[in-house]
Amino acid sequence: MNFTSDNITPVCEPILAAIQAANADTAPSYGGDALTQRLERRFSELFEREVAAFPVATGTAANALALSQLAQGFGGIYCHETAHIVTDECGAPEFFTGGAKLIGLPAPDGRIQARQIADGIAFATEMGVHHVKPAAVSLTQATEWGTVYPLAQLAEIAAAAHAAGLPVHMDGARFANALVHLGCSPAEATWKQGIDVLSFGATKNGALCAEAVVFFDPSAAADFARRRKRTGHLWSKMRFISAQLLAYLEDDLWLRNARHANAMALTLAKGLAALPGVRVLQPVEANEVFVALPESRVAKLEKQGFGFYRWPLCAVRDATPIRLVTSWATPESAVEGLLAAARSVD
Amino acid sequence: MNFTSDNITPVCEPILAAIQAANADTAPSYGGDALTQRLERRFSELFEREVAAFPVATGTAANALALSQLAQGFGGIYCHETAHIVTDECGAPEFFTGGAKLIGLPAPDGRIQARQIADGIAFATEMGVHHVKPAAVSLTQATEWGTVYPLAQLAEIAAAAHAAGLPVHMDGARFANALVHLGCSPAEATWKQGIDVLSFGATKNGALCAEAVVFFDPSAAADFARRRKRTGHLWSKMRFISAQLLAYLEDDLWLRNARHANAMALTLAKGLAALPGVRVLQPVEANEVFVALPESRVAKLEKQGFGFYRWPLCAVRDATPIRLVTSWATPESAVEGLLAAARSVD
Amino acid sequence: MNFTSDNITPVCEPILAAIQAANADTAPSYGGDALTQRLERRFSELFEREVAAFPVATGTAANALALSQLAQGFGGIYCHETAHIVTDECGAPEFFTGGAKLIGLPAPDGRIQARQIADGIAFATEMGVHHVKPAAVSLTQATEWGTVYPLAQLAEIAAAAHAAGLPVHMDGARFANALVHLGCSPAEATWKQGIDVLSFGATKNGALCAEAVVFFDPSAAADFARRRKRTGHLWSKMRFISAQLLAYLEDDLWLRNARHANAMALTLAKGLAALPGVRVLQPVEANEVFVALPESRVAKLEKQGFGFYRWPLCAVRDATPIRLVTSWATPESAVEGLLAAARSVD
Amino acid sequence: MNFTSDNITPVCEPILAAIQAANADTAPSYGGDALTQRLERRFSELFEREVAAFPVATGTAANALALSQLAQGFGGIYCHETAHIVTDECGAPEFFTGGAKLIGLPAPDGRIQARQIADGIAFATEMGVHHVKPAAVSLTQATEWGTVYPLAQLAEIAAAAHAAGLPVHMDGARFANALVHLGCSPAEATWKQGIDVLSFGATKNGALCAEAVVFFDPSAAADFARRRKRTGHLWSKMRFISAQLLAYLEDDLWLRNARHANAMALTLAKGLAALPGVRVLQPVEANEVFVALPESRVAKLEKQGFGFYRWPLCAVRDATPIRLVTSWATPESAVEGLLAAARSVD
Repeated sequence: MNFTSDNITPVCEPILAAIQAANADTAPSYGGDALTQRLERRFSELFEREVAAFPVATGTAANALALSQLAQGFGGIYCHETAHIVTDECGAPEFFTGGAKLIGLPAPDGRIQARQIADGIAFATEMGVHHVKPAAVSLTQATEWGTVYPLAQLAEIAAAAHAAGLPVHMDGARFANALVHLGCSPAEATWKQGIDVLSFGATKNGALCAEAVVFFDPSAAADFARRRKRTGHLWSKMRFISAQLLAYLEDDLWLRNARHANAMALTLAKGLAALPGVRVLQPVEANEVFVALPESRVAKLEKQGFGFYRWPLCAVRDATPIRLVTSWATPESAVEGLLAAARSVD
Repeated sequence: MNFTSDNITPVCEPILAAIQAANADTAPSYGGDALTQRLERRFSELFEREVAAFPVATGTAANALALSQLAQGFGGIYCHETAHIVTDECGAPEFFTGGAKLIGLPAPDGRIQARQIADGIAFATEMGVHHVKPAAVSLTQATEWGTVYPLAQLAEIAAAAHAAGLPVHMDGARFANALVHLGCSPAEATWKQGIDVLSFGATKNGALCAEAVVFFDPSAAADFARRRKRTGHLWSKMRFISAQLLAYLEDDLWLRNARHANAMALTLAKGLAALPGVRVLQPVEANEVFVALPESRVAKLEKQGFGFYRWPLCAVRDATPIRLVTSWATPESAVEGLLAAARSVD
Repeated sequence: MNFTSDNITPVCEPILAAIQAANADTAPSYGGDALTQRLERRFSELFEREVAAFPVATGTAANALALSQLAQGFGGIYCHETAHIVTDECGAPEFFTGGAKLIGLPAPDGRIQARQIADGIAFATEMGVHHVKPAAVSLTQATEWGTVYPLAQLAEIAAAAHAAGLPVHMDGARFANALVHLGCSPAEATWKQGIDVLSFGATKNGALCAEAVVFFDPSAAADFARRRKRTGHLWSKMRFISAQLLAYLEDDLWLRNARHANAMALTLAKGLAALPGVRVLQPVEANEVFVALPESRVAKLEKQGFGFYRWPLCAVRDATPIRLVTSWATPESAVEGLLAAARSVD
Repeated sequence: MNFTSDNITPVCEPILAAIQAANADTAPSYGGDALTQRLERRFSELFEREVAAFPVATGTAANALALSQLAQGFGGIYCHETAHIVTDECGAPEFFTGGAKLIGLPAPDGRIQARQIADGIAFATEMGVHHVKPAAVSLTQATEWGTVYPLAQLAEIAAAAHAAGLPVHMDGARFANALVHLGCSPAEATWKQGIDVLSFGATKNGALCAEAVVFFDPSAAADFARRRKRTGHLWSKMRFISAQLLAYLEDDLWLRNARHANAMALTLAKGLAALPGVRVLQPVEANEVFVALPESRVAKLEKQGFGFYRWPLCAVRDATPIRLVTSWATPESAVEGLLAAARSVD
């Protein structure tokens, strides 16, 4: 009964079956294979416009590669101050861009605001050549705080960015979770609001190792293939990532998985919120629950073997903040188990 | 009947089965899982000393990461002038090292010589601060020309490098093919001759996506885990690379695969050498055959659908040089097919 | 009557004379000359221990080069959130280090605290390989807010850094101004408190283009000469920087210059503080004055041709914050002129 | 009597006087001053078209910055195999470009050929994404071997480069020496043959520390100001580089200096060529003489205190190759002195 993360999960059966099926024979290497060709078309259908999509194996690679296409080494990238790209990628964005600066903006619920972008750009403009050049905006959907940007807020951010010539990147490690919350189409959730590049995540939601960098304007992807190669992220047997992504999108597998994960999170949050002395710290709109419990309760849950992280980034007094993450593979019984245990301890 | 490369092959069955088996349940992410732990021990057994081994998904990642541990941005790396790291990795070593210079040395059979290392270091020493600092040696085993360094030559190169304080990296994308040719132990083929770091390849020899960077002195691997992370090469579901490598080493699968590939190459070379007007251009010691045929024969083979690359880097007059690559998956019938066709065309 | 910055000044006469004197004859290039040799000894005398000192032409070069010696690309550098290295060097530290992250810490008076360093390191340690590795601390003396760290605070910061193995860099673009405020020896102001590397500035305080990176432990400067070369900061005619620095240190020129600049700032601050509606925003301990005036007064001063910057980084309500900078070349009459004008406008 | 290099010279008097004259008063920093503004216009006049010119202090900075504008990290730069950027800049071009590969082409007289560029591009095109992307051509005028490209050869190289979309950079550390040899206008020597960017050198020919990166199409210089800043090469007191360059161009000082240097080299070469057993190894078209002497003669000259470098890069049998460099400051008496000594030793 482990709620530490959605990356501890196994691979979803249809995806593993697709890997097996892709193994039939020899195939052209480095993405010249039929599955990869089909995947590019599939992404274009999915997003209702011609896109350029580049499969890679990890989310950090997807984000850092995407940003390296948008920002040069003397550029500034506006993002949330605790974005995954800031705190959890060991400097990959800085490295891939040749030294761009991630300019972290505060926002208690993980959702940056258009006004913050505009202010940052105004400051940089005044500073001139001494400051990094505003280069891009990156936002996370669903956010690191389990919240989801409403479409209007995405559109406002994109408008503020585009007004200054900055493209907008979306870290979609949990894109499916956000999408089912929003209840709109992939196109509406992205380029129709002004998103230019998407890190389309699948690993956390059932794949073995599959993400894709999706450019909604293929002409903005010039030389991206070389970026992927020179960072060691071009697979010789590429078909085995492409097969995963095709299976992921087949029969709405990705949406079904995400719906389950989100539902489990909501059940968890509701159950916990009903307990005395427990505060749910963020709106639960995806598959993460941030909640503050009395320290004694937290300690007892840990002792009983429940897996989750304490989350001191939530500055909470007189209680212990923790993070619980659900996934496509979280059984209802696990949620019930944790709730039962939380109720019984006191 | 495709001899273009050994990376067009499918995944060897036992390796695919191991991936499936690894999928049973949740597991700690980022290499905290049991399979990855076991793999590190397995590598230490294999090499008969405690090693630090870091699984990654691609050979370019393995090479570039390894070199980034050895050379800083103002360093020089001595290697063959047509090494994979020079011509086929789109500048990954330069990028990962922060700008180190690959100093390409000529050698007709792909095997650089100790004397060339010593000369290069002497030149750099004379140039002082204006020149890059000699930082490392990288050699490929088996080489890009299908030859294999004898153990004595490895020892000489390592001695020349170590005399100036330079560590030695071995690009072992086809390490298994070299090993079965040498007929010695993995330890004898590497650190016993002075190799410090090995890119241990498995993808070309049957894996889906599995390589490992092996440091024979674990203390030389400080911070390497962060290098892997910040280049996007740390998998959350790491167990699925580790499982491949464990299966690869199980029951000598890797050696059996390599033996087959090498045998097919030799059969091919012998059969072609017997034809009039055909010259085998390099000793066939691994799974690659470089051979010059009359242009008319080459054109006919292409027309009949045989897959291989013309190889203009071999400067041959009055004939057309081509490269044929065999693999663990090359059926004897394919070799016979090509030989029969080569005989019948004239 | 220009108070915009201390870098608009001409070159102090003795320094220009030294450049002229250095021009007598040919001299070995790249620092092999007698003046550069003498300078290294002079720095060792000045700091009362053997140091390694590397002259360069700009402060940004000094800072970025120094940090590149301390932090690798996956490192984190703790500093003030509005440090010059963060906001005014267009990403030079990120570039020179290969992507290290500057972790900006808030502190209203520009002086970071030991506790903040310790907290940052603790967070990074918990995050492990996903986060950048704590690598160095950088502080500015005098700070960007015109304040000066007391010796005890420097010692505390260094202790917190060293406890985790982090070296401490001091950006001393205005080191002389800080030193005369502290009234101690250069040794006491630096390594005796635990400073490991100093960007020793002279350009703002009278030189044409002269700074030096000073390592208090020469063994920590390995390969630094190559870093300077490969960033284009090794001069062929190095003697012309060295001559500046020798003249700067001769007969306490640097201290006399700094004393004058500081005195002018204090006079300015006192005169302004006496006016109604004026608030001095920071302790005036060096040669910068941050002060809030009624907007009408600011506008009138601007109209009368006084040069200074509005400083919106100071969040002040109902008044306009400005920055006034004095220098070795600020005549008393200029200070009186500004004060008279400030008094007369209303 | 030192012929080791043209960078051991002092500063030419008119240039030092200009520095002094620039010191009159305060001036806007970072290039906002009147001299820098005037210099940009002066360069445009000189080259008979509007150019964008960026003063910097060193030749390595000029070259590396220029190349970083032309090539990204996954790019290839075609140049001579012993170009200064390859052997004498400690990896600065690789560093500033983020890892671009310098592809060294052989040419015994230092002058690469259009055909070599075309061949290199063809190879890269065939290799596709695995190889670096052809990005730029860099040639040195005058070359490192004391020869000068004829205008027609420049035009051919530029045509081959432009045909594939590659811009052409000229390392003009000794541009003046080449220009007086060619006897044409600066425009004819550069953009009229297709040169896109010039490292305009002055330090070797009389300046203290003054070079400029000149873009013949100002629109190709976008963001270059930030590149200069973030590498620490934007001076606060910029006027002191600009003053040097203005004086350098005044009254043809630069051409007079270069003519003298070239004449001294020619006298030296002719005098040496007349001696038995002496071979001049390269055409003497600028201010460098490569000559092979009997080892006994070389040793005796060294013993008598003459300064020059042995030059083993010239592979000469049965004699010792040396390099002699003259400059604007080489007195005729020094040349006569060396010739007399060379004659008398035997």
